[in-house]
Amino acid sequence: MKNTSKGLKGYAVPLTPEGKSSIDPPPPWHYSSDCMAVEYWADPAAVAALLPPGTDADPEADGRCFFWFLDWQFTGENDELTDPARYQYREAFVLTDAIYKGMKVTYCPYIFVDNDAAFARGWIQGFPKRLGSIFQTRSFAAPSPAAAPLAPGSRFGASVASHGERIATARIQLEEPITDPTSVFNRPTTIRRYFPQLVAGKQHVPAVDELTLSITDNPAIVNVWAGPAELNIPEVAGEDIHLIAPRRVGRGYRLSMSYSVTDLRILKDYRA
Amino acid sequence: MKNTSKGLKGYAVPLTPEGKSSIDPPPPWHYSSDCMAVEYWADPAAVAALLPPGTDADPEADGRCFFWFLDWQFTGENDELTDPARYQYREAFVLTDAIYKGMKVTYCPYIFVDNDAAFARGWIQGFPKRLGSIFQTRSFAAPSPAAAPLAPGSRFGASVASHGERIATARIQLEEPITDPTSVFNRPTTIRRYFPQLVAGKQHVPAVDELTLSITDNPAIVNVWAGPAELNIPEVAGEDIHLIAPRRVGRGYRLSMSYSVTDLRILKDYRA
Amino acid sequence: MKNTSKGLKGYAVPLTPEGKSSIDPPPPWHYSSDCMAVEYWADPAAVAALLPPGTDADPEADGRCFFWFLDWQFTGENDELTDPARYQYREAFVLTDAIYKGMKVTYCPYIFVDNDAAFARGWIQGFPKRLGSIFQTRSFAAPSPAAAPLAPGSRFGASVASHGERIATARIQLEEPITDPTSVFNRPTTIRRYFPQLVAGKQHVPAVDELTLSITDNPAIVNVWAGPAELNIPEVAGEDIHLIAPRRVGRGYRLSMSYSVTDLRILKDYRA
Amino acid sequence: MKNTSKGLKGYAVPLTPEGKSSIDPPPPWHYSSDCMAVEYWADPAAVAALLPPGTDADPEADGRCFFWFLDWQFTGENDELTDPARYQYREAFVLTDAIYKGMKVTYCPYIFVDNDAAFARGWIQGFPKRLGSIFQTRSFAAPSPAAAPLAPGSRFGASVASHGERIATARIQLEEPITDPTSVFNRPTTIRRYFPQLVAGKQHVPAVDELTLSITDNPAIVNVWAGPAELNIPEVAGEDIHLIAPRRVGRGYRLSMSYSVTDLRILKDYRA
Repeated sequence: MKNTSKGLKGYAVPLTPEGKSSIDPPPPWHYSSDCMAVEYWADPAAVAALLPPGTDADPEADGRCFFWFLDWQFTGENDELTDPARYQYREAFVLTDAIYKGMKVTYCPYIFVDNDAAFARGWIQGFPKRLGSIFQTRSFAAPSPAAAPLAPGSRFGASVASHGERIATARIQLEEPITDPTSVFNRPTTIRRYFPQLVAGKQHVPAVDELTLSITDNPAIVNVWAGPAELNIPEVAGEDIHLIAPRRVGRGYRLSMSYSVTDLRILKDYRA
Repeated sequence: MKNTSKGLKGYAVPLTPEGKSSIDPPPPWHYSSDCMAVEYWADPAAVAALLPPGTDADPEADGRCFFWFLDWQFTGENDELTDPARYQYREAFVLTDAIYKGMKVTYCPYIFVDNDAAFARGWIQGFPKRLGSIFQTRSFAAPSPAAAPLAPGSRFGASVASHGERIATARIQLEEPITDPTSVFNRPTTIRRYFPQLVAGKQHVPAVDELTLSITDNPAIVNVWAGPAELNIPEVAGEDIHLIAPRRVGRGYRLSMSYSVTDLRILKDYRA
Repeated sequence: MKNTSKGLKGYAVPLTPEGKSSIDPPPPWHYSSDCMAVEYWADPAAVAALLPPGTDADPEADGRCFFWFLDWQFTGENDELTDPARYQYREAFVLTDAIYKGMKVTYCPYIFVDNDAAFARGWIQGFPKRLGSIFQTRSFAAPSPAAAPLAPGSRFGASVASHGERIATARIQLEEPITDPTSVFNRPTTIRRYFPQLVAGKQHVPAVDELTLSITDNPAIVNVWAGPAELNIPEVAGEDIHLIAPRRVGRGYRLSMSYSVTDLRILKDYRA
Repeated sequence: MKNTSKGLKGYAVPLTPEGKSSIDPPPPWHYSSDCMAVEYWADPAAVAALLPPGTDADPEADGRCFFWFLDWQFTGENDELTDPARYQYREAFVLTDAIYKGMKVTYCPYIFVDNDAAFARGWIQGFPKRLGSIFQTRSFAAPSPAAAPLAPGSRFGASVASHGERIATARIQLEEPITDPTSVFNRPTTIRRYFPQLVAGKQHVPAVDELTLSITDNPAIVNVWAGPAELNIPEVAGEDIHLIAPRRVGRGYRLSMSYSVTDLRILKDYRA
């Protein structure tokens, strides 16, 4: 991808003559993951307070959120998946139910990731990423008390910390496979694409401020299991996320998910 | 800092009702650091190839660069310096000599940092930051063979790695104090503020693409020492930076530096 | 596990009244993993030079080694696998062919791990662990160009770095399943259990110095695939491992492995 | 340092023909550091419960402890201080007052470090190290609101986290220099040197279990300041340290400290 008349290459920075140092290759971006997700209900007013202009609280949702933990593998078109030190990553985020122009959607107010390539792609899409340390129990093929197979009774744990503070901890126990995941995971995701300005006098007006809709090509959700869950979001210094801590926890899910990203839909330009 | 009609706060993402989770506080941003810098000369054509449109190679510079390593302390207006787990960081970057409209400047083509708050502020200014692991020998007050005092003969080392590849290694030995640092460090820094676009069909046109000039309030450089230096920038997988590896190494410097950031000058909007 | 008359608990340090802070629970230790292993041949003299007293080079092996990368899940008897932030880890090591009293064995001269609980268990067994940053391509269930399924043509990469230097990089491409893994992985592993002494005058005599044999209960190796491989062990500052860099690379393997540890065999006490 | 008849070298593992890969060089070990220390009083019974056999609670101490945070530089005899990626580190620990054979001492029940060379040296001495993420506000020479000079009113913060749980957080404000640090820091430190055994049937009997006294050559404490302090040790999953959380907090100290280690005194061999 050639960006300038001077021959510098790179979809993202740094731009260089050969483009190899760029933090991210250009789309298509392909993803496959293992995931833990816990359904829960927070204070509906606290959830509503996080929503961006143009979206509304879903009155039927009663403050419903999902807390997700994801082990991701990423690749572009040059075998990036064989360079896992640079491109493999772990992520945790919250999705809250919301309404956009009558459509049932989710909105992502908080997200943490442990890799800079993913951090940058996230900001480019609108995910408000910060760095964190994220872990989830994995399911291994070789039988052992340590294997956590996809079978009734298996227990999985997950956690996310940032700047040495525990943001959230979850545990689930598998009970039964879910044959129709679309009964659970069926809302598109809205995000707020945001890039601040630093020029004196303009710092209150971001350079980019858009409500966007994540577009996922060829989405697949497989191997979905559900069961009882625990979720804890403690109050820690320097964080607001405890304001949407669980009042009630629903089921937990363990699943695998994939999709590709080649586009983004701009729902609203807040600067217009 | 209130960004929207709905009461969400934050200079940067995430925007929340209380603004505490924001990755960065609004300016003023105050910085103080200990630094190692090594002057060197790279292939002038390779340096020129990295410069953005509107800047030119400095014909008198002959490919001169400085490789910097910095241990930074950051604070905003709320004692952020007392939360070092979140705001203290280490950084490494290259500055290449260049000319902008007849003015002798430097340009920053590569920079690595180990903290997300600094990563985000960098992108907002125009520094093309990626994550790395950066270390430099420190100077301690308690006398010991481990203390590295600011005195003739003291040896300092520094290194930067990213995704498990060593980007650069430097060593210097202190020889003499430098009483006039402006004889060495006297060029303002230009950067390229860049934020890509993801909408299909527009991915080759960034949303933000500006040549900017770093504005530093109340700059101070103190305790400057100079001496012989070594610098190595090996060729490693996935990086272009070895194209500006040293052909010749000049002196090394060890110094302390501080300034504040409250503004940014936009020299050129490439999209205009 | 109660260690002292005063009621302090812990299999390893720190010993505390409740034993929760101990870096490791007592055995049994259960493990399950996904692995990449690359067979290669190094300079036989360099391999022989690494072997501890009482073991000999295997004259039929001609300097044969395996370089392993492992994503591990660990659990004791208290659901430690649901606390992955503390117990899940990644590892890389070399096994060299050797002979002990006429028995074909392997010996582990180098090993890196990214977790302290695993670091401590390793030292207790005799694995000479240091910390590193280790990654391998994973195989995910959700179909995608990023999924790396266990199927012909899938490519996997792996790497290990320590103190910001790349120790090794490997890539393999799956070609065919291996139905009898014992034809490849069939030697027990010897290690050197070693704990130095610090008392002046005795620093050349370790407190513990034993040749040990790793005992694995209920070992299982499943889903073994093989194919062409690449392996690179560069010479970097502060490391000797390049002395056993590959002269010739054999096949690469991708497999899943599990076992439990409840015992250790002491083959030889070097201090006796 | 040559360890065996076969020419393998290394004070610690791994043992190799050239000895460069060893996790630590042999003594002398030289250290210089900047430190924050907070005096506090915990439940005396909880402190007593942590003490090893042969030591007793100090009845005059009433549960007094110090919580320390340290930024360390280490060197052996080969300029290790110029390889900070490998040898520079940060540490946090608790020292509790105790009595050994009538002598007023301290004992170290908990310690965290962010570097493997320091982790290994600690185990060799008797410090029960685990890995953590440790930060403290630094004092920089270049004047700035971010500089934290050694002057009345300067505020310093520090924290330690392990496996993504916050272990402790401290803040101090400098009030006055302390001209006689020995009035505050005047007790030698005892530790428990401990190395478990894994052979079945012997796992309750460690291979090494000694009460040791840290020997520090050429100790220096300089630039000591004191002032009001805060300290928080929250109860988190998987840790016992909150049992010695502060009931009362005394003064906080900021100081620089150096010493060398060439010896260790064995006070008691618990296996004898």
